[in-house]
Amino acid sequence: MRPPLPEGIAAADFSRALDELAGVVGKTWVFVDELPLSTYRDAYSPLADGTLLPSAAVAPESVEQVQRILAIANSFRLPIWTIGTGRNFAYGGPAPRKSGYLVLDLKRMNRIIEVNEKYGYALVEPGVSYMQLYRHLQRIGSKLWIDPAAPAWGGVMGNALEHGAGYTPYGDHFIMQCGMEVVLADGQVVRTGQGGISNSKHWQISKHGLGPQFDGMFTQSNFGVVTKLGIWLMPEPPGYKPFMITFPREEDLEQIFEITRPLKVNQVIPNAAVAVDLLWEASAKTTRRHYYDGKGPLPPSIRTKIAADLNLGMWNYYGALYGPPPMIENNWKLIEEAFSNIPGAKFHFARENDPAWDYRVKLMRGEPNMTEFSIMNWIGGGGHVNFSPISAPDGAEALAQYNLIKKRCHEFGFDYIGEFLVGWRDMHHILMIMYNRADETMRKSAHDLFSLLVDEAAAAGFGEYRTHLAFMDQIAGTYRHNDGALWDLHHRLKDALDPNGILSPGKQGIWPKSARP
Amino acid sequence: MRPPLPEGIAAADFSRALDELAGVVGKTWVFVDELPLSTYRDAYSPLADGTLLPSAAVAPESVEQVQRILAIANSFRLPIWTIGTGRNFAYGGPAPRKSGYLVLDLKRMNRIIEVNEKYGYALVEPGVSYMQLYRHLQRIGSKLWIDPAAPAWGGVMGNALEHGAGYTPYGDHFIMQCGMEVVLADGQVVRTGQGGISNSKHWQISKHGLGPQFDGMFTQSNFGVVTKLGIWLMPEPPGYKPFMITFPREEDLEQIFEITRPLKVNQVIPNAAVAVDLLWEASAKTTRRHYYDGKGPLPPSIRTKIAADLNLGMWNYYGALYGPPPMIENNWKLIEEAFSNIPGAKFHFARENDPAWDYRVKLMRGEPNMTEFSIMNWIGGGGHVNFSPISAPDGAEALAQYNLIKKRCHEFGFDYIGEFLVGWRDMHHILMIMYNRADETMRKSAHDLFSLLVDEAAAAGFGEYRTHLAFMDQIAGTYRHNDGALWDLHHRLKDALDPNGILSPGKQGIWPKSARP
Repeated sequence: MRPPLPEGIAAADFSRALDELAGVVGKTWVFVDELPLSTYRDAYSPLADGTLLPSAAVAPESVEQVQRILAIANSFRLPIWTIGTGRNFAYGGPAPRKSGYLVLDLKRMNRIIEVNEKYGYALVEPGVSYMQLYRHLQRIGSKLWIDPAAPAWGGVMGNALEHGAGYTPYGDHFIMQCGMEVVLADGQVVRTGQGGISNSKHWQISKHGLGPQFDGMFTQSNFGVVTKLGIWLMPEPPGYKPFMITFPREEDLEQIFEITRPLKVNQVIPNAAVAVDLLWEASAKTTRRHYYDGKGPLPPSIRTKIAADLNLGMWNYYGALYGPPPMIENNWKLIEEAFSNIPGAKFHFARENDPAWDYRVKLMRGEPNMTEFSIMNWIGGGGHVNFSPISAPDGAEALAQYNLIKKRCHEFGFDYIGEFLVGWRDMHHILMIMYNRADETMRKSAHDLFSLLVDEAAAAGFGEYRTHLAFMDQIAGTYRHNDGALWDLHHRLKDALDPNGILSPGKQGIWPKSARP
Repeated sequence: MRPPLPEGIAAADFSRALDELAGVVGKTWVFVDELPLSTYRDAYSPLADGTLLPSAAVAPESVEQVQRILAIANSFRLPIWTIGTGRNFAYGGPAPRKSGYLVLDLKRMNRIIEVNEKYGYALVEPGVSYMQLYRHLQRIGSKLWIDPAAPAWGGVMGNALEHGAGYTPYGDHFIMQCGMEVVLADGQVVRTGQGGISNSKHWQISKHGLGPQFDGMFTQSNFGVVTKLGIWLMPEPPGYKPFMITFPREEDLEQIFEITRPLKVNQVIPNAAVAVDLLWEASAKTTRRHYYDGKGPLPPSIRTKIAADLNLGMWNYYGALYGPPPMIENNWKLIEEAFSNIPGAKFHFARENDPAWDYRVKLMRGEPNMTEFSIMNWIGGGGHVNFSPISAPDGAEALAQYNLIKKRCHEFGFDYIGEFLVGWRDMHHILMIMYNRADETMRKSAHDLFSLLVDEAAAAGFGEYRTHLAFMDQIAGTYRHNDGALWDLHHRLKDALDPNGILSPGKQGIWPKSARP
């Protein structure tokens, strides 16, 4: 199959553009054939095959090459889709928002520019993965931890830019980010904060320069191409105590978060407190078909059997304590006492032959790994998409949201597979809708379920904080305070910073003027 | 003296504009006479009297009135200078960047819209002072702490917007801020993050909505008028242990920060660790003329006498521990052991008749007070301006910066009066240049000293994070990475969001097109 052309670009012009791009990066790094281009599709997409295919891809190795690529894109009005390491699974992977975009793949820009042991930070390029940074720190004997997302191949920069969360006390990557270099659509290179001072030694130390703080504006954004990002790293603490608590009943969720809230707001639990449902946990160890070959959600009796077989709860709660052992023991007493009030709560500090426990223990101490990805085997066929509403660490609210979402999942024939994470004040709920992509009806149901959930969540006052390409416009449309004033502002800035609309058009529902209704 | 007119506005037009403004807020809330207008000057200015005087002031009581005022300003091209509670002393107070601006005084918008005990936050309007919020929390029996700046009359919103710092573990107000409502120059009202969802309950809980995070863009900014701001509040901890450590020698500064850095990066000291010089501390208890009536910097013998009389060090170091008593004691041991390595270090946990200790103890537990303001009596005549470079918590760097700045202070005939604060990774150095405003030569020297320090700091790679009106352009000019690309970006956004340039022109060196060279 021939790759699609960018909308409104004649084949001859596109061909000329590709020649010019090859002039910048060399022919090797302009991808136009089916095989290399196939790596830029979303293998898990809730959309039908053949949608969201790039026209070509280009992989620069330097900021200067990025600048020259943007100049070419401006002259041809080429829509560009920027990716870092290109993971972003469940949210669209490396695929562009529309077919025909040119993928700007920054994977070759994967230098770890600085690790500062003294102040605890790293400065990285877009292509640096968690595993790469972790191995680098190991190699140089660093005592700094990273805070990886669950899959080790994720990008340090990409995850922070997309407001991702991790599992150590440095889990809010947006808060822990400090200093950026951004190439604007017209090629101008801007450094934020103290980076505005030539040769500043404080760019990754202070979030502040004089004037507005711009880093946030370039997150989940299509206002520029971020080429360097600073991130604070946590010093290895003198002690570490991971724990798991299993709860026997679904409705325990309410009490779990009533207990969690004060423990989090008071920082007794310093990292993300996570309540994971039975099936998410089971997926690291077994498959659905091992227990059941029917269609539709698993019957309660099977769920009970899985929980018993695998020594899991209907909710499985993870957290960890960090610091000198006496402090850990002091805080642990508070936690134990509080959760002992839930009948049937069981406390775990070690679990044999439990890959789910093993990888959570690693994640909470900053060791990236790939175990969670085995969730893909749960039903097979690889499809999954994450529905991620923000809510509050409130028991009744969490339970109501869970019940609403579970009911809809079951109506559409899906299991509920999800987790709740509590950060500084916020709660992220992540529902993983899993489907066999080979089953067209199932894929379509997953899509329709997601779309329904977006509207129902919005009606109840919940907004999503991140989403798959297919739902960006719909979710943007739910942010309709004051007639959608926030997106009007996005669009005004988009027009000012990228008048030709070349940078990731449509990302997060932000479109250039020419593509807006 | 007649108030100045806004530049380029005819008297008759201005008079019409004032009539229209009175139509919005009522005649009572449009100030045109000398007496009320005199409250909008900077009583401590390093500039000569008669500079930076407003043409008039208007005080709305609602967002809708703000919108209508901006419409009038747009139609007459009136430059507006927005203030909250109007403090901001040492950085220009309520005075506008240029004479003739209309002050938009938001002091009447002083509602505490919400205090959420459960999640630990407040949502406030621009006019809410620290003292007001503190008293409100006391009245309702809240167990939440605020994090005040040193003077109690400061504004909760204004301080957070200007990247101010406080003294509890929630001292980085920018990091603790969550959710804003902003009126753009054209009157459109935007809410950030989850505020984009109509009737969101999560606006102050999560920093994230879908898409770019804009809060930072509206800090130290003239891109909009912030009318609501959310701030996280710290729950009262189960224990509190403030401490002071005095150090006998100026050069101890180096070791102080070599010891502080790991204690801060590892969060052993959870709040801002502050090293305050002898004279800043002495000013809470005595006056310069009590010890010396000569000109120029105090001779070393007098400094030694002051230190002995008042039981102070050349550096006086404050911090506090928070939490359950066993955790406090565990961390205290680490701190004590570390600082005992500095010969002559003395540890203080209570000090009789010491107002400086008393107010620091209050500040570090979130009780606003006015004691620090007695620093104004040190030399009398009230003039002071703060020079505030960002640096790193590194002993050699701190000592070098101190020596450079002290030398210049002495050359210009001033004492060094300053403090160093260490936050998450950054160090703020605050030099308070004090002068008698009645002494014209001294005032001018203060101005020239400041200006010289800006250039010397920039040459050494240091940028200021906040500044007085008089130095905004100069400091903006020191952010010259890539030919000043950061200010080009500011200006591009300014033009897009405020094409008539009505909002606080020149704030932080950001000027509308018509006023740029």
